[in-house]
Amino acid sequence: MPEILVVGSVAYDSVKTPFGTAREILGGSATYFSVAASFFTRVSLVACVGHDFRSEDLLFLESRGIDLAGLEHHSGETFRWSGEYGQDMNTAQTLETHLNVFADFRPTIPEAYREVDFIFLGNIDPTLQRSVLSQVNRPKLVACDTMNFWIDGKPKELRETLRNVHVLLINDAETRELSGEWNLVKAARAVREMGPRTLVVKKGEHGVMIFTGEGTFAAPAFPLENVFDPTGAGDTFAGGFLGYLASTSEQGDAALRRAIVMGSALASFCCEAFSLDRLLTLTRPEIEERYRQFQDLTRFESL
Amino acid sequence: MPEILVVGSVAYDSVKTPFGTAREILGGSATYFSVAASFFTRVSLVACVGHDFRSEDLLFLESRGIDLAGLEHHSGETFRWSGEYGQDMNTAQTLETHLNVFADFRPTIPEAYREVDFIFLGNIDPTLQRSVLSQVNRPKLVACDTMNFWIDGKPKELRETLRNVHVLLINDAETRELSGEWNLVKAARAVREMGPRTLVVKKGEHGVMIFTGEGTFAAPAFPLENVFDPTGAGDTFAGGFLGYLASTSEQGDAALRRAIVMGSALASFCCEAFSLDRLLTLTRPEIEERYRQFQDLTRFESL
Repeated sequence: MPEILVVGSVAYDSVKTPFGTAREILGGSATYFSVAASFFTRVSLVACVGHDFRSEDLLFLESRGIDLAGLEHHSGETFRWSGEYGQDMNTAQTLETHLNVFADFRPTIPEAYREVDFIFLGNIDPTLQRSVLSQVNRPKLVACDTMNFWIDGKPKELRETLRNVHVLLINDAETRELSGEWNLVKAARAVREMGPRTLVVKKGEHGVMIFTGEGTFAAPAFPLENVFDPTGAGDTFAGGFLGYLASTSEQGDAALRRAIVMGSALASFCCEAFSLDRLLTLTRPEIEERYRQFQDLTRFESL
Repeated sequence: MPEILVVGSVAYDSVKTPFGTAREILGGSATYFSVAASFFTRVSLVACVGHDFRSEDLLFLESRGIDLAGLEHHSGETFRWSGEYGQDMNTAQTLETHLNVFADFRPTIPEAYREVDFIFLGNIDPTLQRSVLSQVNRPKLVACDTMNFWIDGKPKELRETLRNVHVLLINDAETRELSGEWNLVKAARAVREMGPRTLVVKKGEHGVMIFTGEGTFAAPAFPLENVFDPTGAGDTFAGGFLGYLASTSEQGDAALRRAIVMGSALASFCCEAFSLDRLLTLTRPEIEERYRQFQDLTRFESL
């Protein structure tokens, strides 16, 4: 029985950054999430891939202890995305998107997972997100991602999904768009009134804020000297955040704050190489060392 | 004998924000700086105003204990600036700038201030900044602001000034432009090699970072529910930062971090009303309470 069920995309990405180019590398929101969470807990991945999905990638995911019973294999091709980053490395310009087998993805939760405690609904159609929730039995915590495409395109369906979400993880522009409020404090309150008791606002190089019933917490991003490829950093953050949370017995404010820092630590490693390359060699002591570096980065004394 | 000497502009601003309009209100970099610093220490203001400068504004500055012996009164009109903010409230669009008497400002440091310990060189021509330094006798700490206009327009003169600056306070775009490096960590190192042992990078709503020989510290901006007018927030930050630093006997890493948070606290109040209005009624207990709120905003436990 995995502790976290993640539903989302598995893809092959082609990425160009000012520092290099990589083609057909393993990507997708659910992939990054699963690998990051696997440092803390057991994960089950519900997604679909095509006939061209490489066995080495399956083996890699299995080597991380990720349960692949929910990974469907279809006859078409695997989801492809290609994008390019400019100097600022904050947002990719999408060059091509080929949904391929992902276009007809209708997530089916294996019977054995229906009692799972933690769920992460990756950035997919809010109608599909809701269908996932209808297949599981009262999870302890439902976390969810979404994007402008759904905020604009399926606002009613998204609102319906949000009513059943505990933690929403989106970026600052999405928070503003979803709420219709420019001020982030007001925007956060409006989003929390839609259902999620906790809102995590991802701000890329500017860090993360979390709004809960108990207050607000702000963490900076780790100041990296070499941001090689930020693709997947947001999903890696989410995986580190939820993975850590699932591994503790707490869900209060203090645990949420530690989880935010843990997610930020994982995300910082993700940016240091193409694809999941840095996560391949990452160790628990390295993660804990970076957590301590976050403490150095943010500590200051009382007056 | 004041503890801080500030050289910069005193102006009348006309500001339009989504929340209202104010005309001919007291502003200018040296004004905001002085008033913020006056909560912590004695300040002497070196600037110039025109015949139309209002006596009530002189009285207000004096009421803050600011020494005005270095404030020159010229026969022309006081510096005027007008600008407008959109919804994002991060950057003003300048509508008009009339330098007026400020165009011929050649700062003269009164004899009595030449042994001052702390100097803040507001955002003026780097040649004038250097002339200020040539008139004082080895201050303990020279802090300096500048902007894109000088980075582009007088790069050699600015470099010459920076060689004699201990603390440079600029924003992230200016840090990148001055260094020619996009990555902020590399950019900060390059700027510190130009002279300033300490670089403070102001990021508006995303907070502040400080790069010193001992490491890096990041503080968020205070999440305000009502940003009414951000004009002067950067100078108010600088005044709170340097004022606090001048009021302590320390200048090490721990004191710099507390000073960054103190500057951030002052800047957050500045944004809550037009002009210096919020600072008029601000009390020391309110400042200390906001400092504690910054602790709540950023604290997290060890693993």
